[in-house]
Amino acid sequence: MAPGRSDTLAAAPERPLIGVTVGDPAGIGPEITVKALGNPEVQRSVRAVVIADRAVLERTLDALGLDVELHAVIDPEEGGYTAGVIDFVDAGVLRQLPAYGEVSAAAGAAGLAYLERGIASALKGELVGLATAPLNKESLQAAKAPFIDHTAVLKTRAAHRQPMTLFVAKTLRIFFLTRHISFREIADAITAEGILEALPMCDLYLRQLGLKEPMLAVAALNPHGGEQGLFGTDEMQVIGPALAEAQRRGWRVTGPIPADSVFNQCLEGRYDGVLSLYHDQGHIAAKTLDFHGTVSLTMGLKFLRTSVDHGTAFDIAGRGIADERGMVAALRSAGEYAAAVRERVDLPLEG
Amino acid sequence: MAPGRSDTLAAAPERPLIGVTVGDPAGIGPEITVKALGNPEVQRSVRAVVIADRAVLERTLDALGLDVELHAVIDPEEGGYTAGVIDFVDAGVLRQLPAYGEVSAAAGAAGLAYLERGIASALKGELVGLATAPLNKESLQAAKAPFIDHTAVLKTRAAHRQPMTLFVAKTLRIFFLTRHISFREIADAITAEGILEALPMCDLYLRQLGLKEPMLAVAALNPHGGEQGLFGTDEMQVIGPALAEAQRRGWRVTGPIPADSVFNQCLEGRYDGVLSLYHDQGHIAAKTLDFHGTVSLTMGLKFLRTSVDHGTAFDIAGRGIADERGMVAALRSAGEYAAAVRERVDLPLEG
Repeated sequence: MAPGRSDTLAAAPERPLIGVTVGDPAGIGPEITVKALGNPEVQRSVRAVVIADRAVLERTLDALGLDVELHAVIDPEEGGYTAGVIDFVDAGVLRQLPAYGEVSAAAGAAGLAYLERGIASALKGELVGLATAPLNKESLQAAKAPFIDHTAVLKTRAAHRQPMTLFVAKTLRIFFLTRHISFREIADAITAEGILEALPMCDLYLRQLGLKEPMLAVAALNPHGGEQGLFGTDEMQVIGPALAEAQRRGWRVTGPIPADSVFNQCLEGRYDGVLSLYHDQGHIAAKTLDFHGTVSLTMGLKFLRTSVDHGTAFDIAGRGIADERGMVAALRSAGEYAAAVRERVDLPLEG
Repeated sequence: MAPGRSDTLAAAPERPLIGVTVGDPAGIGPEITVKALGNPEVQRSVRAVVIADRAVLERTLDALGLDVELHAVIDPEEGGYTAGVIDFVDAGVLRQLPAYGEVSAAAGAAGLAYLERGIASALKGELVGLATAPLNKESLQAAKAPFIDHTAVLKTRAAHRQPMTLFVAKTLRIFFLTRHISFREIADAITAEGILEALPMCDLYLRQLGLKEPMLAVAALNPHGGEQGLFGTDEMQVIGPALAEAQRRGWRVTGPIPADSVFNQCLEGRYDGVLSLYHDQGHIAAKTLDFHGTVSLTMGLKFLRTSVDHGTAFDIAGRGIADERGMVAALRSAGEYAAAVRERVDLPLEG
């Protein structure tokens, strides 16, 4: 890491200040965080302050054999954010280091404490946004945490509007009408009311990202969009009429577009985003296209949160082989969008 | 087109002889065929003999302003297959040229006649395989054809085993357990019997393509593969047990793998193919990854047939703006696989 480079980085105060919570310390979160912070693209796009226990970071740096200085800060603005140094907020919650790859109340509580600290700091305005490494659901349960996952914590502490997940992969932006329900429940969960409720949020959230007059496409449910009822009537009876009503109300939306075409058309720039109807519809598109570069953005909070789309990977924790590309992408997306979202978090709904 | 190049091509007799049916002459089939035959990659990989009426090809070349010679052959072996010349079998069925973009019995009958001629030639062994441009279902109906589409004709005339569609996009190879049914019918259409019937065929067809001891992965139906029943029990009750039984019987198969991971893992080389459970599952993966390069292979015939995965596009027929990349990919895939399939068409089922 050349000294000239560090000077250049330090002289770029416009880089947004992003908090990075390392997640469950028994998982791969600390490792992917430390690795991602060494990525020059990340260094160029954000000032990243890590939130963790000092011992967790020390153990990670030792295991990876990295010669990186740890610099504790109280206020994130104190950090230097230069290459070769990790600025971090010492959460000071762990009495002893948890074993890698093991479910424990201590690790669960620590991961949650890092997140709570990050949220509090973002709510105070010290951070523009958060990028989060994974928590472990079983460890959260062991800690008797009142939350089952990140989303539950964020909704409770920092919801501003109706939170929605937005996937970003290359130039694809994908919202989800339904998500964690079984396949058999999907068709009945797609209602005109649900679509008409989601569309204004999608529009608002795309505008918060800085897109002007965004055009949204809605995916179809049936193969070929149902082919006039030949393979299903959901498009004719539910989705189509809902979109006609939305257009009548003035929303910029088109569809339903057959699901095997709509994502490619978005990639080609015909739409600014796609509302997918179910989990796998949007997930297959994003993750087949760019598995390691797919980032999950949580919209509707008082600040932008980005995250990796994988778990704690207890099976490989501590072995130095975790792939940090998801965290690199999460940090780069935070750098790209967090300031825009912060600035526009109070944008009104249109229509 | 350099003369030296033509000589080189003519001196490469190992290029497989592929028949190209231009499909409905009122659609974009003739245009994409002619454009694709000018592609150097196509010229390097196949000897392509077109099956059409001479007037259809003349009109197409005129409209595109292409200075290409038409050379009629009776036996495909007579063709020279050099750059600057299109060798074709004159089907001689049209009394007059059909208008572009219009449904007509004459165009429907002509498209079908080209296909029947191609099939007959392939069955005689004159062609190693077929690449087909699209037919129009309404024109087929107008012609009172006894077939609704390509697949119906091919099944009737040339089925050797149970025909199956295989999508190829980059290094993805995707089979389909179900296809043209409505979304609501999918879950119940996935049965252990159906899976156990499909797997040996997938294995055989991958071996016909030349893959040794192919490893197949089966996609899951529910998000996250159901997460132990949290989001659906199809994996625990149907798909998982079927795959366990298949493994017990000796098939090389793994799964169910969450659908947002399985295609990427196949791309990375962990599997030779994926059995997707429904149309959009596999279609979204292939066509988001490589929309114009996705090729449909029909396996289980007495010869390999490849095709574009789009329709006649009557709205733009005759305007010279049709995108030939799908046909280029279909011809290249035919060149890559047709001889292998021909050689192995009588491979026995294993297991």
